[in-house]
Amino acid sequence: MTERLVVVGGDAAGMTAASQARRRLDAQQLRITVFERGAFTSYSACGIPYWTGGVVAERDQLIARTPEQHRARGMDLHTATEVVELDLMGRRVRTRDRQSGAQQWTEYDHLVLATGAEPVRPALPGFDAPGVHTVHTLPDGQALRDALARTGPGPDPRAVVVGGGYIGIEMVEALLLRGYRVTLVHRTPEPMPGLDPELGELVRRGLEKLGVEVVPGAEAVEVLTGPDGRARGVRSTVGEHPGELVVLGLGVRPRTELARAAGLALGVHGGLRTDERMRVLDASGARVPGVWAGGDCVEVRHLLSGQHQHVALGTHANKHGLVIGANLAGEALAFPGVVGTAVTKVGDLEIARTGLNEREAAAAGLSWVAARAESTTRAGYYPGTAPVTVKLLAEPGTGRLLGAQLVGGPGAAKRVDAVAVALGARLTVTQLLFQDLGYAPPFSPVWDPVLAAARALLGRLGPLG
Amino acid sequence: MTERLVVVGGDAAGMTAASQARRRLDAQQLRITVFERGAFTSYSACGIPYWTGGVVAERDQLIARTPEQHRARGMDLHTATEVVELDLMGRRVRTRDRQSGAQQWTEYDHLVLATGAEPVRPALPGFDAPGVHTVHTLPDGQALRDALARTGPGPDPRAVVVGGGYIGIEMVEALLLRGYRVTLVHRTPEPMPGLDPELGELVRRGLEKLGVEVVPGAEAVEVLTGPDGRARGVRSTVGEHPGELVVLGLGVRPRTELARAAGLALGVHGGLRTDERMRVLDASGARVPGVWAGGDCVEVRHLLSGQHQHVALGTHANKHGLVIGANLAGEALAFPGVVGTAVTKVGDLEIARTGLNEREAAAAGLSWVAARAESTTRAGYYPGTAPVTVKLLAEPGTGRLLGAQLVGGPGAAKRVDAVAVALGARLTVTQLLFQDLGYAPPFSPVWDPVLAAARALLGRLGPLG
Repeated sequence: MTERLVVVGGDAAGMTAASQARRRLDAQQLRITVFERGAFTSYSACGIPYWTGGVVAERDQLIARTPEQHRARGMDLHTATEVVELDLMGRRVRTRDRQSGAQQWTEYDHLVLATGAEPVRPALPGFDAPGVHTVHTLPDGQALRDALARTGPGPDPRAVVVGGGYIGIEMVEALLLRGYRVTLVHRTPEPMPGLDPELGELVRRGLEKLGVEVVPGAEAVEVLTGPDGRARGVRSTVGEHPGELVVLGLGVRPRTELARAAGLALGVHGGLRTDERMRVLDASGARVPGVWAGGDCVEVRHLLSGQHQHVALGTHANKHGLVIGANLAGEALAFPGVVGTAVTKVGDLEIARTGLNEREAAAAGLSWVAARAESTTRAGYYPGTAPVTVKLLAEPGTGRLLGAQLVGGPGAAKRVDAVAVALGARLTVTQLLFQDLGYAPPFSPVWDPVLAAARALLGRLGPLG
Repeated sequence: MTERLVVVGGDAAGMTAASQARRRLDAQQLRITVFERGAFTSYSACGIPYWTGGVVAERDQLIARTPEQHRARGMDLHTATEVVELDLMGRRVRTRDRQSGAQQWTEYDHLVLATGAEPVRPALPGFDAPGVHTVHTLPDGQALRDALARTGPGPDPRAVVVGGGYIGIEMVEALLLRGYRVTLVHRTPEPMPGLDPELGELVRRGLEKLGVEVVPGAEAVEVLTGPDGRARGVRSTVGEHPGELVVLGLGVRPRTELARAAGLALGVHGGLRTDERMRVLDASGARVPGVWAGGDCVEVRHLLSGQHQHVALGTHANKHGLVIGANLAGEALAFPGVVGTAVTKVGDLEIARTGLNEREAAAAGLSWVAARAESTTRAGYYPGTAPVTVKLLAEPGTGRLLGAQLVGGPGAAKRVDAVAVALGARLTVTQLLFQDLGYAPPFSPVWDPVLAAARALLGRLGPLG
C-alpha cells in the first residue's frame, strides 16, 4: 500500500527529508506532498549576507534546487501554499493557497514539520518602518538589495546593524562591501556573545580596524524615522546612531505557531522537541504518532550541557532531513545532538567556537579551567602566516574538554573542527594533545594552534597522566 | 642530589625533551648536557624545501632556537660534538669534538637518544656525484641553494627529482619556483604512494598542469655524469632524464648506528622501539634503564594497524620531546601512537591523508569499504571555492573508520584533521557523519566535504543504525 508523506516547509530539512525518502522509496511505496508558503525551495539562507554584500552576484546561485527540479524527482510540491492547521488526530493538514485563498485538507501517514525559524523583530517603536531589514529569507535579501540599489552609495551612506552575533557581523561585512559607514549596536560588553569577552575583544578590534563604529552595552530601544516615515537611525540606551539603513541581527526563533496551535509541546526556546530519530515528542516525552520535525523549528540537545538549545544552522537541518528520510524507509539513523560549533568571518578575521564558553559552562553547572595559546595559522616563517588565538576549556579533575574558541587570520576558523570531533568523542585535553593533526609549514606550526592550546591547558590542569 | 641528563641530538625531539625537563626541574635538580654533531639546533627540517625554493628568504628563519638561546636557558650544549659510543652498562657516552678530535666520556643518569634520520641515498653509480642533492639538513639546503645560485636559471635549466613522495613533491614545487623545468621520476604508477592510485592520479594531473614531466613506474638506476664528473641527468628503468640538478626524495631512515652498536634492539624499519613514555625497550620488550628516545630515530605504533612504523615528522618529534621531558620530572605523560596523518601541497593543490589507504589496510589484514565524494572547499556559490575529492575507508560490519585521503584546492588539506581525530577516537562512519563541523559559506558547503564522503560511505556500507 502506498503511504502518504506530507512535508510542511520546502527548505533544507523538509526537502532533504523528502529527497532522502524518495531516494529510498519509489512512488508506489511513498507519495510525497510538500507545502511551501514561499516561492523558493532548498536555498542557502546562510548565503544571504554574501548576496546582499555583492560577494555572490545572483540570487539563483543560492538556490540548490528549484521547485521544478524537485517535482521532476517525483515530489508533489506546492509553493505559495500555507499550512494553516494541523489535525493530528485526523492525520491531515489544512492548506491555504496564498493566491486564490482556496483551502483544502490533505491526509498523511507521515508528517514532517520543517517550518523553520523567523528573525526576532522587537515590538518597539519604528522597528517595522521602511528601511529596517532582516536577512532571513530570499525576499528579505531581495528587499535589502533593492534598498541598497536605491539609497547607496551616496556621498555618505550610513547603516546601523543591531546585534553583534553571527548575522550582525556578517551584515557589517556586507554593508562595508557596499560602501557604507557602519555602526554596530550590541548589548554585550564585546561583540560575538558566543565567545568569552577576551576573544570578543579581538573581534571588536578587528571590526574597528575595518572602520566600524562598535557601540557595546547598547540596547536598541527605537528606530528613529524621518518625516517620510523611513528609518533614519537607531536610538539605543547609550545614544543615537544615524543610518538610513537599519539591519537587525537579533537572532531567530523557531516558527512553531502552527505546531503550538495543534497542541504540540514546545521546549523552553519555543522549538519542537524530538527524539534522536527526529520523531516529535509530546510534553510527557512520548512520541506523537507519525509526526517528525527537523531544522530550524526544533530544539537540539547539546552533548556537553545536556540541555536543549535552538541552533538555526543549515548543516543541522540537512542532517535532520537525512535522518528523517532514512527512518521513513526503516533505517535506524539517529541525530545524536550538537556541540555548538559555529564559524564566521569579517574581512580577513575568522571566528569559530565549539562546545561551551565560560558563561555556558557556568550555566550548565560545570566547573572549568581555561587556557589560551597565541599561535599562527602557518609556520611562523611561511608567507601568509597569520596570528590566531585559541582558547580551550576543560573540566578540572577529569580533564574532559568542554569547549574551544578561535579568532585569527585566514586558516583559523575550520581548525575548530578538530576540537568539535574531540568534543563529540568526549576526549580529554591529554587525548587532544596527542591527536595526529596534519603538519607541514604551509598549513601549521609544528604544534598546531589547537595542540598548543591543549598543551597550555594541560599545564594549568596539572599532571593528569 | 643533582641528576645528570645527557641528550644526543640537538633538534626537535632532543631539545624539546631538554627544554621541557628544564621547565620543570631547575639546575639543582637536573644538569642537562646536549651533544649535537652539527652547528644548528631546533630548526625546521620541514621548511627546507621552502627555503630552497625561495618562499622562505633566510636560513635563520627556519631556526626556532639557536645554541646560544638554549645555553641561556641553562643547558650545557655542545655543537660540532659527535657521540661516538654509548656505554649503557657504565651509563656514560663517549664524545668526539669534530674540530679538535678530542674525545671524552660523560656520565649520565638519564640518556635521551634523538639522533634523527638520514636521507636514503642508493649505492648506485653517480648518486654521490656533485649536483646530486638531498634536503634533510640545513647544510643540505645550503648546498642546494648554492648550486641553484651557480647553475640557474640559465636559458633552459632542468632538474630531475627522484621520488614521488612528500619531499619529492615539495622539491618539485621549489624547483619550479626557481625557474627549472622539472622531471619527476618515481617508482609507483602514480605519485604520492601514500594515496590510493585514483587520488594519486589527481596529484599527477596537478603536476602536469604545472608543466612537470611525470615519469611513473620508473626506478632510478644511475645518475649520469658529464666529463666534469657532475650530474647531467638520471637514467631510470624507463629511459634517460636530463637535468644538471638531481634532487633525491627517496625518504629517510632512522639514524641508529650508534644505538645498534651499543646493543640496543631495532625494529623492522631500523628505528628504536619505546614504550608510550618514550623509554627505550630491548628486544624482549623490557625497558633499558635510564634510556629514552624520540623523534625520527624511533618507530611509532600505528593505532589502526597496530604495527610499528617509521614516521619522520617534526610534530611527532616535538610530542616525543614533551613526553620525555614531562616523564623526567615524574609526570606520567604518554605518547599513544599515530594514525598516519600527512599533508602537503604543490602549487594550489593540497594533499592530505590519514589512517590507512587500501594497500595499507590490506597489509594490516583488514577488509574495507571505500567511497569518494566530489565536493568543494567553500559553498559552491562562494568566490574562491575549489574542488576537493575526499575518499574514506571503513571496516564493513562495524563501520569503524579506517582512513581518509583528500586532494583539492586551497582549504582542502587541513580538513583531514577532523578525520584524524575521529580515527584517534575510533569513531564509526555514522559517528563521523553526525559530528558538528563548522559550517558557513566562506568555509564549507552545507555538507562539509568530509561529511559528504561519510554520507556516501554510509550508503555503501548499508544501514548500520
